Formats: sequence, C-alpha cells, structure tokens
Amino acid sequence: MVKSRQWLLAKKPTDMPQLDGPDATFKLTEKDLPEPKDGEIVVKAVYLSNDPAQRGWISPDINPERLYVPPVKEGTPMHARAISEVIESKSSSFKKGDWVFSSTGWSEYGVVPASSCQPAPELPGGMSRTHYLGALGGTGMTAWFGLTAVAQITKDDVVVISGAAGATGSMCVQIAKNIIGCKKVIGIAGTDEKCKWVESLGADTCLNYKKSSFADDLTKATPEFATVYFDNVGGEILDLMLTRMAKHGRVAACGAISNYNSSKERATGLKNWFEIISMRIQVRGFIVLDFMDKVPEAREVFTKALQEGKLKVEGSEHIVECGFEDVPKTWMHLFDGTNQGKLITKLQ
Amino acid sequence: MVKSRQWLLAKKPTDMPQLDGPDATFKLTEKDLPEPKDGEIVVKAVYLSNDPAQRGWISPDINPERLYVPPVKEGTPMHARAISEVIESKSSSFKKGDWVFSSTGWSEYGVVPASSCQPAPELPGGMSRTHYLGALGGTGMTAWFGLTAVAQITKDDVVVISGAAGATGSMCVQIAKNIIGCKKVIGIAGTDEKCKWVESLGADTCLNYKKSSFADDLTKATPEFATVYFDNVGGEILDLMLTRMAKHGRVAACGAISNYNSSKERATGLKNWFEIISMRIQVRGFIVLDFMDKVPEAREVFTKALQEGKLKVEGSEHIVECGFEDVPKTWMHLFDGTNQGKLITKLQ
Repeated sequence: MVKSRQWLLAKKPTDMPQLDGPDATFKLTEKDLPEPKDGEIVVKAVYLSNDPAQRGWISPDINPERLYVPPVKEGTPMHARAISEVIESKSSSFKKGDWVFSSTGWSEYGVVPASSCQPAPELPGGMSRTHYLGALGGTGMTAWFGLTAVAQITKDDVVVISGAAGATGSMCVQIAKNIIGCKKVIGIAGTDEKCKWVESLGADTCLNYKKSSFADDLTKATPEFATVYFDNVGGEILDLMLTRMAKHGRVAACGAISNYNSSKERATGLKNWFEIISMRIQVRGFIVLDFMDKVPEAREVFTKALQEGKLKVEGSEHIVECGFEDVPKTWMHLFDGTNQGKLITKLQ
Repeated sequence: MVKSRQWLLAKKPTDMPQLDGPDATFKLTEKDLPEPKDGEIVVKAVYLSNDPAQRGWISPDINPERLYVPPVKEGTPMHARAISEVIESKSSSFKKGDWVFSSTGWSEYGVVPASSCQPAPELPGGMSRTHYLGALGGTGMTAWFGLTAVAQITKDDVVVISGAAGATGSMCVQIAKNIIGCKKVIGIAGTDEKCKWVESLGADTCLNYKKSSFADDLTKATPEFATVYFDNVGGEILDLMLTRMAKHGRVAACGAISNYNSSKERATGLKNWFEIISMRIQVRGFIVLDFMDKVPEAREVFTKALQEGKLKVEGSEHIVECGFEDVPKTWMHLFDGTNQGKLITKLQ
C-alpha cells in the first residue's frame, strides 16, 4: 500500500491565495492509495507545471459554465499537469521506469488508468523532459497558435508582447522575431534583468513596466503604433496598450494575470474600450485547447527552429526544487514576479 | 449679404456638456456670410442629424491621432450632418430650391462649394427625406455593416442589441429579425415604452435595463447564451453582456454612449475582460466609414426590404422642431433617454 500526500483546495481565494492561517487556500493531507487494478499504473510525480491558468480554476468568481475546464472543487486535490515516473504497472502500455504525463495534480503518487497518461520520452540533444511542460508543450503551443492562428502575424507586423519574460511571453518573442521575422518586436516585463533576457531572445526592445516612465517609454517605442498585441497580463498594461494600437490592430487575449488575484470589486477596470471602436481594433480571446488538432504541425516547426538555432530553450525554465510540503509556496512565485521563463517544481 | 447664426464649440466638456454658465460647451454667434463665388452655393439648413458620435468629436480626452475624423476645435463651428435647401446657386450642379446634404454643421446658412454637397432627392412612397439621415443613411448603414460584415450574423444566431430603441439599435433589430431571420433577437432599452416599441419592430423580447431585475432578466432571456452582441452603449451593460456570451461569440463594438459624458477617471471600467479569454469571444470595433464602397449594395437590400414590409421606417424618427437657439438643447436629448429612433432637429 502506497501512502501519498496531496494538497487539497481548502478555500477558494477571492484575492491573493493564502499559504496559512484560517483562510489558507490549500490543505496538506495524506491518504492510502488503492492497489492498482488491471490497466492501471502507479506513478510518482517528479515535475509539476505551474501555470497562471490554475488561479482561474480555483476562483470563486468563476461560473463553472464559463470556464474551459471543470474548476477545482473545495475539498478535492488541486489540479496540475505533471511529469511522473511509473513505479508499478498493471498495463501493457507502460512499464516500471517509464516517464509519463499524468493529470495527478498536487499529489505525490497516483493510481490512474494507463489510458489517462501520455508517454514523455526523452528529448533529442540532451534537452530536459521538462520542456514538454513549457517551450515544447502547452506553453509553447499557446504562444504559437496565439500569434499565428489568432493574431495571424506576418513579417510586416509590429508586435508588442506583455509578460515577455514569462513562459508564454518568452516563446512569443522568439516566434515573432526569429521564426516569423516580424518587423519589430517589443517586450514588456517587470525588471531590468528580465528585460535584458527578453532582448537576448530576440526582442528589439523590452520595457520595464515598473518604471515610472513606462507609459512614455511605450509611446516612444511605438511611434508607428502596434499592429499586434499579445496580451498575457490584462489590467492596466492592456488598458494602456489599447491607446497604442494601430488602426485595425489585432489583440490576442491570452491571459490576465494582473487581475487573477483581485476580486472583481477591486480589479482594475478597463477604461479605454472606446479605442477598440475608434481604431477598429480586433480582439480575440483564445485557449490553446482549441488548437490541439494542429499540434503536430507546430511541433514540426519548433523542431526545425531548434535545429536552426531560431528557438532556444536553454534558460527558458525556472526550476525550483522543493519538498512536497512547499508545492503551494513554489506555485505562488507565479504571482510575485520571481520566475523568468517557465516555473517548474521539481519534487525532492 | 446673408447673416447666419452658428454654434461654436466654446469649451470641450470633460463630463456632461453644459448648456450655459461659465463652462458652457457651445456659444451662439452670428456672422456675415461672404457672397458665393463661381461653383459655390448658399444653403439653408433645414434638418440637423443628432448623433452620439458627435460627443466624441468634442471630447478633450481624445487624441486627434486616435479619431476617425478630425475633432472639432474650440472656437470653430460644431460639426453635424444636415439636409439643406439651396437658396442661391452659382453652380450648374444645383439650382435654387434643390435639397442637398451639406456639412455645414450647426449653422443656419452656409456658403459652400457645390462639390461638397450631395443631392437629397425625394424618397419614393412619400417617405420623408430625413430618412437619409437615419434608417436609409449612416445610421442604417452602421446597423447593416455592423451586423453583416463585422458580426457576420446568420439565421442561427442569438443576437442581443443594446440601445435597441436608438437610431442604430432599432435598425439592428429589424435587420437581424426581419431581413436576416435570426433565431432570437433580444433588445435592451431604457423604458418599458421603448421596449414595447422594439418588440413591435420584431425583437423576440426587449429588456428594460433600468429595472433592478435587469441582470436576472438578461440571464433568463439568454439560457443558451448570445452568439452575437451588437453594442451601442459600452459600460456596465457591455460588462454584463460579456458574461452572457456563448463560446466563440462575436461582439460588434459600435458605440459606448454610456461613457461619452464621463471623464476617464469617472468612467465605469470594464471588469469582465477575462470572459473574452475563457469564452474565446471575438470583439471587433468598427466605423461605418470603412464600408462606404459597399453602400450601394446595402441600399438595394433596404429598398427591397421596404417593399416587402420587412423594414419599417415609419415611427423610426424622433423629430424635434425648434429655433436655432435651441440646437444644443435638442442635441442633448441624445443623452437623457428622450429619443426613440433617430433624433433629428427640424429648424423653424
């Protein structure tokens, strides 16, 4: 019998999630796992993917009807994507020692149908498997489909990317500048150090939104206005960007992390909607799940770009090694500006 | 020599325009008009078009670079579309007694190049020429292109229209229900009387947004969610509608009258942007000027629809007869909920 610790969602947070106290968002528990039945495997989580989207899954504001995945219920394990090792198998699909993607959430171990897992084989060139969670996984696909299918970027575009030092944003910068070859790519990030990194990935410039001169800097960086804005953050930066969009500009609405930890009452409301009308701006919200049938094509593009040096995954991960008891604490770094690139938890 | 009174923009209003007092928005002046030169005509304004868009042209918040027409400058005549009578002509294009569209703004008389005017001949079936300003003019075209080219409505759509008793909205209702034949058309208006009128135009239902039960009423009216929202008002109704859009729904962003008289500091910010992402909503701002090349096609559709009784223009106008000194006062009715259909000033 395997004992597994797991983190449950204790209380949906209206504002910033709480690590402890009476309103703690998560609760650590332990349970005995059942013996695996035929067709099932026992997996041990090794890497956990940390994604801003998870914040939405635990929000009390969200009407379950209005979310693209079932939200997490209070008293049930927190959802997360994981790369796990198979430690026991009653399935012909996987054997002990195989690596898989599992939807076992914030659990040390899981007993799951083999059919619910996908293989996570080694990557070529000595690349870490963790890139399956980031650059070569959902994050990279989000960047790719958001830019190509949603915003339909071409070489002629002036592209602004917020959250440019984040997992998705850093891929956006490379895709726009190095793969598509856009005329100008402007990143927005939260520290000078991150901005330097974003520029090293290919951005023509990257602006630090925490500087008091940010609004001016953005105006100066976009004298011809932006034809495309890839928005990872929402809130005030989005509001400002609406005033810097070119006529008929396109906004790919990917995320709104700036408001994920604010109740709607406190959230910064968008004031510049009229720009959408007067400048005939087109806004398209999207979720990467809508493009899953095209993932193989995107993988081919990425593989070629990696070979040609147009896409770099080194340095695109921010891996935090911690004990299982610190899983929520590590996840919270998504919201304090710590991570550069994809934030991944490596369980000790 | 002709003397003409005219209303100048005295002071750009940050909030509700002021009719008098030290911060009066407009100022009545009189000037001697020059004698017409060869190729010019003298026109007398008979009807003035009152349009919410005019509020944008006099806003101090608007960056001239970000407007689709040159804004009105302080100290210059207020812009407006007019139907005028030719009282003297030094052009072969028009003779005395002809009717024209003139861009003479809020002026009693104008001396203008004949080439700056278009003929306004009589309409068939005894319809008033004023419909050129409303149902059969820019207003009707805005409704048509917004629904067909921007939102791309089909019979399968559930369409919600705000400002449904307004000039554009009342045309939208008829186009969506009677010409295109959409599955369900829901209007939103500001009094029960207006709602009844909107329903008489073809809407399946029309909701009074001033009722305290409005949010519930809207939820009940859209059990299957709305696939299309034609937005004339912005603000709180738009914010609420984002929560009632179906997955992949389309928003045609036409106007935002609810915020036209609020400085940005006081404007109601939009809180529900995340719905655009989670529901993959597509928003497209538009201005009718972008579709001028397709106006002849639209006119054909309207003519046929009028003949078939699918489009009614009777009752679609709200004509206020007043002296020239009351032109601003009449225009202000756009913002106090008075008008049903197109608000037109008839000069005494």
